Amino acid sequence: MSKTLKKKNNLTNKQKEEITSLRKKINKTIRPVSNGIEKILYKIIPVLDHGFLRVVDYMGDDQAVVQAARVSYGKGTTKVSEDRGLIRYLMRHRHSTPFEMCEIKLHVKLPMFVARQWIRHRTASINEYSARYSVLDKEFYIPTEEHLAVQSKSNKQGRGEVLSKITATEVLGILKKDAENCYNSYEYLLNENSDGEIIDSNKDGLARELARINLTLNTYTQWYWKTNLHNLMNFIFLRADNHAQYEIRVYAEKIYEIMKAWVPITAEAFKSYRVGSVEFSAESLKVIKDLLAGKKITQQSSGLSVREWRELMNSLDK
Amino acid sequence: MSKTLKKKNNLTNKQKEEITSLRKKINKTIRPVSNGIEKILYKIIPVLDHGFLRVVDYMGDDQAVVQAARVSYGKGTTKVSEDRGLIRYLMRHRHSTPFEMCEIKLHVKLPMFVARQWIRHRTASINEYSARYSVLDKEFYIPTEEHLAVQSKSNKQGRGEVLSKITATEVLGILKKDAENCYNSYEYLLNENSDGEIIDSNKDGLARELARINLTLNTYTQWYWKTNLHNLMNFIFLRADNHAQYEIRVYAEKIYEIMKAWVPITAEAFKSYRVGSVEFSAESLKVIKDLLAGKKITQQSSGLSVREWRELMNSLDK
Amino acid sequence: MSKTLKKKNNLTNKQKEEITSLRKKINKTIRPVSNGIEKILYKIIPVLDHGFLRVVDYMGDDQAVVQAARVSYGKGTTKVSEDRGLIRYLMRHRHSTPFEMCEIKLHVKLPMFVARQWIRHRTASINEYSARYSVLDKEFYIPTEEHLAVQSKSNKQGRGEVLSKITATEVLGILKKDAENCYNSYEYLLNENSDGEIIDSNKDGLARELARINLTLNTYTQWYWKTNLHNLMNFIFLRADNHAQYEIRVYAEKIYEIMKAWVPITAEAFKSYRVGSVEFSAESLKVIKDLLAGKKITQQSSGLSVREWRELMNSLDK
Amino acid sequence: MSKTLKKKNNLTNKQKEEITSLRKKINKTIRPVSNGIEKILYKIIPVLDHGFLRVVDYMGDDQAVVQAARVSYGKGTTKVSEDRGLIRYLMRHRHSTPFEMCEIKLHVKLPMFVARQWIRHRTASINEYSARYSVLDKEFYIPTEEHLAVQSKSNKQGRGEVLSKITATEVLGILKKDAENCYNSYEYLLNENSDGEIIDSNKDGLARELARINLTLNTYTQWYWKTNLHNLMNFIFLRADNHAQYEIRVYAEKIYEIMKAWVPITAEAFKSYRVGSVEFSAESLKVIKDLLAGKKITQQSSGLSVREWRELMNSLDK
Repeated sequence: MSKTLKKKNNLTNKQKEEITSLRKKINKTIRPVSNGIEKILYKIIPVLDHGFLRVVDYMGDDQAVVQAARVSYGKGTTKVSEDRGLIRYLMRHRHSTPFEMCEIKLHVKLPMFVARQWIRHRTASINEYSARYSVLDKEFYIPTEEHLAVQSKSNKQGRGEVLSKITATEVLGILKKDAENCYNSYEYLLNENSDGEIIDSNKDGLARELARINLTLNTYTQWYWKTNLHNLMNFIFLRADNHAQYEIRVYAEKIYEIMKAWVPITAEAFKSYRVGSVEFSAESLKVIKDLLAGKKITQQSSGLSVREWRELMNSLDK
Repeated sequence: MSKTLKKKNNLTNKQKEEITSLRKKINKTIRPVSNGIEKILYKIIPVLDHGFLRVVDYMGDDQAVVQAARVSYGKGTTKVSEDRGLIRYLMRHRHSTPFEMCEIKLHVKLPMFVARQWIRHRTASINEYSARYSVLDKEFYIPTEEHLAVQSKSNKQGRGEVLSKITATEVLGILKKDAENCYNSYEYLLNENSDGEIIDSNKDGLARELARINLTLNTYTQWYWKTNLHNLMNFIFLRADNHAQYEIRVYAEKIYEIMKAWVPITAEAFKSYRVGSVEFSAESLKVIKDLLAGKKITQQSSGLSVREWRELMNSLDK
Repeated sequence: MSKTLKKKNNLTNKQKEEITSLRKKINKTIRPVSNGIEKILYKIIPVLDHGFLRVVDYMGDDQAVVQAARVSYGKGTTKVSEDRGLIRYLMRHRHSTPFEMCEIKLHVKLPMFVARQWIRHRTASINEYSARYSVLDKEFYIPTEEHLAVQSKSNKQGRGEVLSKITATEVLGILKKDAENCYNSYEYLLNENSDGEIIDSNKDGLARELARINLTLNTYTQWYWKTNLHNLMNFIFLRADNHAQYEIRVYAEKIYEIMKAWVPITAEAFKSYRVGSVEFSAESLKVIKDLLAGKKITQQSSGLSVREWRELMNSLDK
Repeated sequence: MSKTLKKKNNLTNKQKEEITSLRKKINKTIRPVSNGIEKILYKIIPVLDHGFLRVVDYMGDDQAVVQAARVSYGKGTTKVSEDRGLIRYLMRHRHSTPFEMCEIKLHVKLPMFVARQWIRHRTASINEYSARYSVLDKEFYIPTEEHLAVQSKSNKQGRGEVLSKITATEVLGILKKDAENCYNSYEYLLNENSDGEIIDSNKDGLARELARINLTLNTYTQWYWKTNLHNLMNFIFLRADNHAQYEIRVYAEKIYEIMKAWVPITAEAFKSYRVGSVEFSAESLKVIKDLLAGKKITQQSSGLSVREWRELMNSLDK
């Protein structure tokens, strides 16, 4: 779409009007409704410099989880009278099937290198914008200075310290120049610009499926992504974690906020038993018991590796 | 539940009231709504002698399929202006992901031998009534006379001719007696009847997870079953087929009716390109071409096996 | 198969000969081989009274897990020189995809009520003996006396105390009589006994797909079950757990032994980080930290529910 | 890896030695062996300019398909004596579970834009080289002149005529220059070249997970990909089709050749009933019947759309 039409939040006026119009059209249903998520339905939630998330549809709420659990437990469980208690019980004991009874569909705009991580979550349905059919927008992710960091020394897959101001400016300059240069070549190869205008009417353009191979991995794509609540929690757990790359983490964090609006009781249980939980190995548990019994114990005497000992002490704030 | 409370269609008065009350509670939503399916939401659709189907929730409609396809084809496809044409195109070319964007949740009551076939469809979410927790109802499937048939001679997995009246009466008598006898033992072992009353207050009951192993395979169970539209069509295609066992076919046929109410345009395309379609092998296609060219061709000269030749001729009404 | 041909361990002489013959046929391969599992390949591992497990094929070994992990970490990880350390790291941090690179195929004979729990593990391939095509053997699971227990008071889905000798004898008598009676009716309805002999040559038999509905849930079936190592561990974790029903637990325990023979390093890591591990909620972790800091803390002051407090104290042997 | 060490077929001498050494190590197994695939195990099969396929492991053969089908059909099917006939029957009637009993693991080197299409096949296990951990090789896909084509006029996602010699030279020049330029920036940002040498010892490099976003989509990645035979056939069917993009089609075609070596009987049935088969809609089938009956029928009178009529006539060579 033309950049001249673009407003803040990556939206054209036309798109803003569509969203406003969708939000005005109130339908009647006898299905269950989650009022929290209705408030944000269709709205753009900006992520990174050109990306966004939008909830496009959903099915079910906290009550759907309870209902599914009750069919399993049947008449024998009428005494488990409290819904919140039941949801917390299911979460604590990793009874995952009742959480599969809720479904959500998101519209996501994201850089391709983030899309490549995201799609590793296989239990989901995806329809992605096809660059074989259509021309991609001239939009690529350029980090902000505070997210430019050196390769971590301690963590082979992570970031270390933030770059100095001078280096950062140079780095950003390179990223911008290379992405723009590749995109300009893309338009030239297509013989068509991002507004769909033919550049030279005496020439044919290269096939779209070929021209796109010249684009850089920070180019934005978009897709519809649909998954159930159980798999959504797995996504949040893994991708909102501080080991995840910053650029996917910001999406996961916003999805966590969406989840809180949608299924608040499940989100609270998820916080207690998944996000905030710690798992200790058989050997680490023994160390904890020894410590509680007042025994003297060191990394050497524990049998744990240096790395595991450090992880254990960190968990215990020691 | 007590049989004395039971009314027609396998429902207690309490359940009928719940359904009436759910259907009266009209909510507001800005999600898309399928009016066809709203009309049957929550209602009991009787199947077999004690079974039923109920739509409990759904997400999306025909328009959701179109929307997902359009995000894939992007700006390049604004000319495919007609939604019906697009859905038929997707179905014809087996582009399945847009159909995954719709979801449905059913409450099903079904005999266990049907449940064992049904669950082979793996891409679905299930919460089943647990006989480890709760006591199963005294309900078992007994066929009607016109569905009692001898083992087929020609089809190793099918039914042949219907039994004579006299034999049928004997068969039904055996099925009823054995199922009742096993269920009576089940109550005795549990020391509890199906209304939850203790039989002998001086005795303990056998664990439920053990007592249930005495029940026959025609005992009814129930579950919540949730799947997407693509997998729903696979289910209907395989199970509403005349090679499927009658007792699961009647469920699949009712689900097909539900699908027509929910997504009528998709259902129509499904009828053209899946239900009513025929697939010809490379060799069979050659025979058709030869026939159209007026060539003389026989099973022997065709290279097809006797069985394939017969299948081909059947398809062509020859 | 005829009972007269049957030997110990549920096998006919013919089957024993087939296994001996398969084990004698030594092939050459340049694929990796796990010597531990080769030793038990094809052999019958008896489970319950008539059931069994057999490894029928496998792919990969501990080294395949390492190889897959190294392709992910690439050149950057040449320093992680020790395979055992790498496998333990993967297990501790729940990096599951390398474990998906190993595959196993089992032949299992099991009662139908166990099959109904087993099949809930969806990420697997199954081919089951079809009672629409063939006649089921006259074999049903009858528990031994020490596994007959009353319904648990504390655990809604479990077993409590073992039955008294007198009650046990009565219970076993009922289970045997009902199963046999139903099986006898099954043969009568089929007009065919379990050796495939026609009973009355002047009569037709009821279709197999119908006659089977008269059988009890403890009737044995069999299937080929194929899954990857990651999902195998999930199966073992859930089903060898002491909350699982005894009758599936014994299968899971034998599969755990198979796993130890197949991938010993992975099995050891699985024991440390999954089987023997404990997960603490955010709230429980706080209690542990307080206890280690010498603070006085009670269930009331902890904010934990009575149930969670008890679970926590149990974990800590307090 | 250093370009100076590189030989034909994208391999360093070290890699060639490893493959030779793996192929020399002959192990004994009592598992079934497919001699056809043993002959190509581990060997490099070159694809595109820098890509390759290698079979790294496999499980099962044609006989495993038969074995799984026979367990389903049980004693009732001893008369289906011929394995080839049984496999053809399974393929014709789309009984897919027996084909799931075979498994294959490939090592693939492929451009990222191909990887993005490939990964849409969800039922598979993948471990991909991680550019968060390691530095990617300086290798990008540049098409050959005969595969450079203009955007198709008739097919929105395809290629039309081949470019003229002069245009092709210009296009290739642009693709090469942009990819090299981006890769040079990548090395500069990392402060490390593709041989792992530090460029400027007074500087830190940008985190790998960030630097990689500057690379173009034709950069090569690699992964281990494991799937079962049923899903392998789906992959071949969709990706060896002439609607698939050329650059993934060449991989699918080589995988088809691998399949023929591995399971020749299944591959033959696949050719008859899937690759060479045609599916006709209910409406198209009626046209065929009318034509065979000698009726005069036109697109207008047929009720088919222009597009479907054309597709039908093409199928019939009319």
